Amino acid sequence: MDKIPNALAEFFSHRATVRKYTDEAPSRELIDSLLTAASKAPTTGNMQLYSVVETRDPEMRRRLAELHFNQPAAAGAPLMLTFCADYYRFTRWCEVSDADPGYDNFLSFTSAMMDAVILTQQFVTLAELSGLGTCYLGTCLYNAPEIAALLKLPRLTVPVACISVGYPAERPEETERLGTEGLLYRETYPELSDEEITEIYKAKDNFAPNSKFVAENGKKTLAQVFTDVRYPRAMNESTSDKLLDFLRAQGFLKE
Amino acid sequence: MDKIPNALAEFFSHRATVRKYTDEAPSRELIDSLLTAASKAPTTGNMQLYSVVETRDPEMRRRLAELHFNQPAAAGAPLMLTFCADYYRFTRWCEVSDADPGYDNFLSFTSAMMDAVILTQQFVTLAELSGLGTCYLGTCLYNAPEIAALLKLPRLTVPVACISVGYPAERPEETERLGTEGLLYRETYPELSDEEITEIYKAKDNFAPNSKFVAENGKKTLAQVFTDVRYPRAMNESTSDKLLDFLRAQGFLKE
Repeated sequence: MDKIPNALAEFFSHRATVRKYTDEAPSRELIDSLLTAASKAPTTGNMQLYSVVETRDPEMRRRLAELHFNQPAAAGAPLMLTFCADYYRFTRWCEVSDADPGYDNFLSFTSAMMDAVILTQQFVTLAELSGLGTCYLGTCLYNAPEIAALLKLPRLTVPVACISVGYPAERPEETERLGTEGLLYRETYPELSDEEITEIYKAKDNFAPNSKFVAENGKKTLAQVFTDVRYPRAMNESTSDKLLDFLRAQGFLKE
Repeated sequence: MDKIPNALAEFFSHRATVRKYTDEAPSRELIDSLLTAASKAPTTGNMQLYSVVETRDPEMRRRLAELHFNQPAAAGAPLMLTFCADYYRFTRWCEVSDADPGYDNFLSFTSAMMDAVILTQQFVTLAELSGLGTCYLGTCLYNAPEIAALLKLPRLTVPVACISVGYPAERPEETERLGTEGLLYRETYPELSDEEITEIYKAKDNFAPNSKFVAENGKKTLAQVFTDVRYPRAMNESTSDKLLDFLRAQGFLKE
């Protein structure tokens, strides 16, 4: 990274999610200009298969936060942005352009999801560089049908990433990450022995705040906090069914 | 964006994809350091549901480029990186940690895909800031099973984004984008009349290189180039079936 100025390298190496904001909402002009720059990020065939719905109105914010289970980062945010995988607008353009669109299928959903997530992350980077704090609300796909109803999303759109945005009212804590040797593989994916898996996650298992988390949840291992408390099988499976039904309803899955 | 230094705002506002590279491959150290910084990007519950496979070996590059239909950005690249949605490593960690993982379902695939795409885009930004050029190979999900076989990817992994990386051997052309007013909606998704759709795409329809593209393909409208040539229905539908079969084979979809 020797060509990246130090301050910038530091910024990326120590960024962290902000979950508490002041009451001041970022202006429309700021959001517009950040989104204009972010939209230069790569997109499938330059089709820009995304749209963004801004939630500023207090009553709409209350209702949207509820669909994100009222997590503090949502309930306390002056602004939420929902990034949607969107083949609707492009399909409408085809229809008014004497062309026959064929984007009501699963591949097209994945292309639009890619575009929407790339845009979201580029926006997050630009927002953070501007001094804003952001937080991905991981619940977006859990309540996708209800969020779509609230935001009046048409067919061939799916809300895939929702972020809260505001001026930070906390100094966020950096979270630990796995070392690159556990993530980056040379030429092929290696066969990983149990010992190698243990080694990759060792620092994470021994990280003091994680050990505290294990004790608080009455579990024996950190992994059990994920499997039994945070992301348990029954919830994942029922949410998968709900999400697949919604993709079908939006026109992205056929029988 | 007034808090972002001008040079940086310019960088993001004018970035472009690079498809021609010099023969020099970026060093392992550089890729490692960029990936270390990129891995500070947000990830679902700090689970880091991704992995990256690096393709440097000339024979592996030839075979991987073939799976990307030998597009020049792949065939001429000194290095390719395949970013995978990966619940395999996390699941193995659960298994060695006396925990019962429940991540063989569609919701878990979407979480891992989000994580992988966010990481890819953060890596792309850092690579570009370092003076490297990158290109997303949009074909990654088209030949996901064949790519997985070549890279020996295990169950619960799916290659979702492949990029070529190198030192630029061209000054890339910026591509045009839709105006924000066509992408960013206030509170709810608006009902868009045919006239409004036409207006949103007007600059794109009238952009000189696009008009040339329409003529070269013997079409009447730009949209027809997309529907008839670049992303036709039959290809989308057969690729959707292939991709869904692959998700099933990798353990992310049940009957």
